[in-house]
Amino acid sequence: MIGIALMGAGRMARVHAKAIRAAGGRLVTVYDVVESAAKSLASDTSASAARSAEEALNHPDVDAVLVATSSDTHVDFIIQAVKAGKAVMCEKPLAPNLSDAQRCINALGAKASNVFLAFNRRFDPGHAALKKAIDAGEIGNLEQLTITSRDPAPPPLDYIPNSGGLFRDMMIHDFDMARWILGEEPVSIHSRGSCLVDPQIGKLGDIDTACVTMVTLSGKQAVILNSRRAVYGYDQRIEAFGSAGMVISDNPRATAVQRYSSMSFGAPDRVFTFYMDRYGHSYRTEIETFIDGVTAGTPPPVNAIDGLRTAYLAEAAGASLRIGEAVELKTNCEMTWHD
Amino acid sequence: MIGIALMGAGRMARVHAKAIRAAGGRLVTVYDVVESAAKSLASDTSASAARSAEEALNHPDVDAVLVATSSDTHVDFIIQAVKAGKAVMCEKPLAPNLSDAQRCINALGAKASNVFLAFNRRFDPGHAALKKAIDAGEIGNLEQLTITSRDPAPPPLDYIPNSGGLFRDMMIHDFDMARWILGEEPVSIHSRGSCLVDPQIGKLGDIDTACVTMVTLSGKQAVILNSRRAVYGYDQRIEAFGSAGMVISDNPRATAVQRYSSMSFGAPDRVFTFYMDRYGHSYRTEIETFIDGVTAGTPPPVNAIDGLRTAYLAEAAGASLRIGEAVELKTNCEMTWHD
Amino acid sequence: MIGIALMGAGRMARVHAKAIRAAGGRLVTVYDVVESAAKSLASDTSASAARSAEEALNHPDVDAVLVATSSDTHVDFIIQAVKAGKAVMCEKPLAPNLSDAQRCINALGAKASNVFLAFNRRFDPGHAALKKAIDAGEIGNLEQLTITSRDPAPPPLDYIPNSGGLFRDMMIHDFDMARWILGEEPVSIHSRGSCLVDPQIGKLGDIDTACVTMVTLSGKQAVILNSRRAVYGYDQRIEAFGSAGMVISDNPRATAVQRYSSMSFGAPDRVFTFYMDRYGHSYRTEIETFIDGVTAGTPPPVNAIDGLRTAYLAEAAGASLRIGEAVELKTNCEMTWHD
Amino acid sequence: MIGIALMGAGRMARVHAKAIRAAGGRLVTVYDVVESAAKSLASDTSASAARSAEEALNHPDVDAVLVATSSDTHVDFIIQAVKAGKAVMCEKPLAPNLSDAQRCINALGAKASNVFLAFNRRFDPGHAALKKAIDAGEIGNLEQLTITSRDPAPPPLDYIPNSGGLFRDMMIHDFDMARWILGEEPVSIHSRGSCLVDPQIGKLGDIDTACVTMVTLSGKQAVILNSRRAVYGYDQRIEAFGSAGMVISDNPRATAVQRYSSMSFGAPDRVFTFYMDRYGHSYRTEIETFIDGVTAGTPPPVNAIDGLRTAYLAEAAGASLRIGEAVELKTNCEMTWHD
Repeated sequence: MIGIALMGAGRMARVHAKAIRAAGGRLVTVYDVVESAAKSLASDTSASAARSAEEALNHPDVDAVLVATSSDTHVDFIIQAVKAGKAVMCEKPLAPNLSDAQRCINALGAKASNVFLAFNRRFDPGHAALKKAIDAGEIGNLEQLTITSRDPAPPPLDYIPNSGGLFRDMMIHDFDMARWILGEEPVSIHSRGSCLVDPQIGKLGDIDTACVTMVTLSGKQAVILNSRRAVYGYDQRIEAFGSAGMVISDNPRATAVQRYSSMSFGAPDRVFTFYMDRYGHSYRTEIETFIDGVTAGTPPPVNAIDGLRTAYLAEAAGASLRIGEAVELKTNCEMTWHD
Repeated sequence: MIGIALMGAGRMARVHAKAIRAAGGRLVTVYDVVESAAKSLASDTSASAARSAEEALNHPDVDAVLVATSSDTHVDFIIQAVKAGKAVMCEKPLAPNLSDAQRCINALGAKASNVFLAFNRRFDPGHAALKKAIDAGEIGNLEQLTITSRDPAPPPLDYIPNSGGLFRDMMIHDFDMARWILGEEPVSIHSRGSCLVDPQIGKLGDIDTACVTMVTLSGKQAVILNSRRAVYGYDQRIEAFGSAGMVISDNPRATAVQRYSSMSFGAPDRVFTFYMDRYGHSYRTEIETFIDGVTAGTPPPVNAIDGLRTAYLAEAAGASLRIGEAVELKTNCEMTWHD
Repeated sequence: MIGIALMGAGRMARVHAKAIRAAGGRLVTVYDVVESAAKSLASDTSASAARSAEEALNHPDVDAVLVATSSDTHVDFIIQAVKAGKAVMCEKPLAPNLSDAQRCINALGAKASNVFLAFNRRFDPGHAALKKAIDAGEIGNLEQLTITSRDPAPPPLDYIPNSGGLFRDMMIHDFDMARWILGEEPVSIHSRGSCLVDPQIGKLGDIDTACVTMVTLSGKQAVILNSRRAVYGYDQRIEAFGSAGMVISDNPRATAVQRYSSMSFGAPDRVFTFYMDRYGHSYRTEIETFIDGVTAGTPPPVNAIDGLRTAYLAEAAGASLRIGEAVELKTNCEMTWHD
Repeated sequence: MIGIALMGAGRMARVHAKAIRAAGGRLVTVYDVVESAAKSLASDTSASAARSAEEALNHPDVDAVLVATSSDTHVDFIIQAVKAGKAVMCEKPLAPNLSDAQRCINALGAKASNVFLAFNRRFDPGHAALKKAIDAGEIGNLEQLTITSRDPAPPPLDYIPNSGGLFRDMMIHDFDMARWILGEEPVSIHSRGSCLVDPQIGKLGDIDTACVTMVTLSGKQAVILNSRRAVYGYDQRIEAFGSAGMVISDNPRATAVQRYSSMSFGAPDRVFTFYMDRYGHSYRTEIETFIDGVTAGTPPPVNAIDGLRTAYLAEAAGASLRIGEAVELKTNCEMTWHD
């Protein structure tokens, strides 16, 4: 049974703790900068509360470290855990910005591809089935990819200033989806953003509505649409069009119930508004995949290099928005823009 | 161009008159027992108003007669028209009751199969596609057939007493669908009826909610569900289940528009509540099929014998309801019950 | 933490054992007539293997007994467990036949309503949402209920002779659904059966395709369609039609993925063919409901009397099939037929 | 009855001729540069074949002129017809390029808004229902608009060189949809294009796969996706997302039939591959709207100025593609780019 140290004791850490148990892992120790939080989660899970990050990362019973702390601590914890010879899984994003992400990759060297980066949507049953269908050749050559990604409601306003902005905080998931499904790096990116949901978000220097276009070397086109608010719930769909067909991963529903009335004619059941209803399955599968991989000694399906590349896309999207032009992308994640 | 005499100038006659023109037929003359109605429709269609049924039925420019008068006149007009050497299409039902239907078939002899009986639902695009799929072997051997047939609202109460009752007036369509799709005559029928929509219908001796089960010699099962009222509109679906699959003809929608709101999550557009929206296409195709058949000299796809057999099923369903038992059915339409 | 004795160590017992742990119950002991099976399951779950049924039923650490043995042992285990003062949950059916079910109810007296009968489909998210919508008045007065229930494939032939027949073995679930949703006991039942899937089933004296109609005192109509085989998977849908609308619990899908190709135009993902995929959620919720009820001291939502009444409907359906007529139903489960 | 001169006797002219008759208009005369084509259509429709364009445009029995000739003749015929005091409807595009479109508007002056420009998709039942829902406030403020527009198959290669290119020839419809639904002029446009369907199209200097992003002054975002080939048929969907919900105009289906098999689980019927199946209804409604407007003396719902503005967007999209940057748009259709 794999022994795990959990860095962080916040909301996502608790989600992961539950998934670790369900997947047959053993939570050994919990660390959080807020000691009481670590103790509380440790107590709920029969784990110990580590007195320091170092203690957790170097704990002899720990085989694997799961980093679920605030973004600015990810890089250091990853590097320390790898040095300590532990397997590592880290919450997205890899780092709060591109330079830190680059620093992480440089420090890790060849081991970067062993660090599991927790882009949970790759483990969503619908999105995974779409990817599998494409890989199986069902749509022939992929030509146009449309990713719609809207959250039920914006985060609290006080979250915005430290979020890194919509591209780094929210669209980062969609950049990962796009790269994963395209199977090819984009060579250009063009972004547009508006503040339509809440003018306060604009006053804080962020946008809440965005549209990004990317093109690959072979001419594949990808569009990402983001909004911080969809009154009907999580609206996270992917549509992949190709030479032999199209596959769509639509929003899942609570049940297969349909309603008819004088106003309603076979209305499907509601989509989800709570993140654990929408993505609970993907969180569990993600942890299972991590634990199975550590057990089997196989490399993770999504790693720190994916974290770097999504950070690069987020950075480029921000630059494109500021300068009002498309931005050229390099395979080495070099910044081609001046802003 | 086929010259047509139209017997009747009521609502359905007007629907047919329009379809005749669209199908390239020529409406020669119109007869109605209410002379002013005949004159009005004749004037609207550049046809003559016949002074008598005989004049219309024997008009030298008339190749084909379309009978759309009240049910009690159908048999006589059919027999006269056939005697006059005209092609004939007659609105459903063939006759107001089984004995009249039997009389008609006896009088027509071999020519019964040349009389087009207007069960328009056979020409509905969805139902026709379902039938075609079954005939093409898509579901293997048909085993269970479910026909749901609900009207948006009951007819006016004063229509009920002369309607012949729900089985003869409304379920007659579904009996035809069932026989057509089963491809085999039922050998038993069991019916249950309730008055749930409007107690006044019950006071007039009729039911408004019915459920009928039929079985064929080979063991195929067919269920028909009827209601005189569905608040969401025409609910007329067919579901055919077989050894290799299932095909469903669902309710068509006004458009392919879907709506999302805080209360609605991809709700399809409304189903139809007006008979011409729901069945307009089938009326037009029915007339085209009739005219094309007359032109080509080919026998109609649905004929007076189908009218007899549906009348027999309606009669048997009524008997089963009264005696509270299943009723055995004979291939010669003989009545096996005593009530 | 509720201590539980598990009677039986077969397939369903293992499903329940897993659900007990997930629901926070404690599996204390396992009994099975095959001692090695009990030992194996006990070992997998850190429980003890009881040497006799009595030992398990009277174990001092046991608060609740879950009966998941063969049908013919249900009644005795229930009675013994109740005598021992334990809370009881029993797999469906209550008993292999009506007379045993009646004997059980007589023996239990007022305590019959405390015995949880495991009709798991009441806990299916879709079916439960349908029931909730009806109870909330969404469709007004229920008037017609259609239950379609088809399994992916027939059971092994050697299962048939001791199954009790399709009505007792398979349609028993649908009888429970019908009673639950109707909210009213049927006063008559009419059944038809065919052997269309496999002639061997017919040779063993059973049917594989059935259609049952029931009517309540107030005139509500219910139809149940059963087939032992649906090539597309579990086809278990409920459609409830009423004065103000209709609600349908359709087949759930693996994902919300849709496919387009030259042959396919938005095809939904597959329905389930494995019972744990289709009903795993309901099994878990069922056990949670049981454990929560025992903890809170509240009566179960479905009990032994429901077991008696479904046994009565199964018996009556069999009689109706044999005598070829509708059968009258009594509120005291008295047999009105002679066959 | 409105007398109509039809300029052109090609495929679309024949579609219009049929619609004119169905709408109760009278086709007076037909002109085509190929005299035999004019004669053939005139003969089929009981109209005269005009010996010259002038004769047709000035025919005393003609109230309205329908221009359905090649694009390069549109402007002159429109101007002449307006000068002759006729009502005018013109096929899209208004002109083969922006400067001709501008010349037309300048020549027409205030009368430009009286010229009906035949953007038929505005009359598609689904798209029109979407627009109506937005105007009724169903989605609150529109924020993101996605228009997917893919044809079943590319046109013949010899059509490409004179087509004006994908933006002018195909996306012109989508530019009109976007402006109509946005209710606001875009202030910037960014386009990307690839040649993925057929390399021959690329050799002819055109693209076959395109993605365009536009933003309005208030920050609304619109994306248009085009492909010259979709193996599953016409894929022409519109999705409008707003502050209070979303409305989607999905692809209509041939029927509401659904199929189940061991490979298929409720598959909807096919989408359309023939333009008259997909858009026949919109062509008829368009002509009805024109004739009704001429009769009532009301201005057309879509006019020559819409033709100019779509030509401007097509020109700007082409420029953006060539220079690889977003292009600023002016309300006076001034070209802001240098290429």
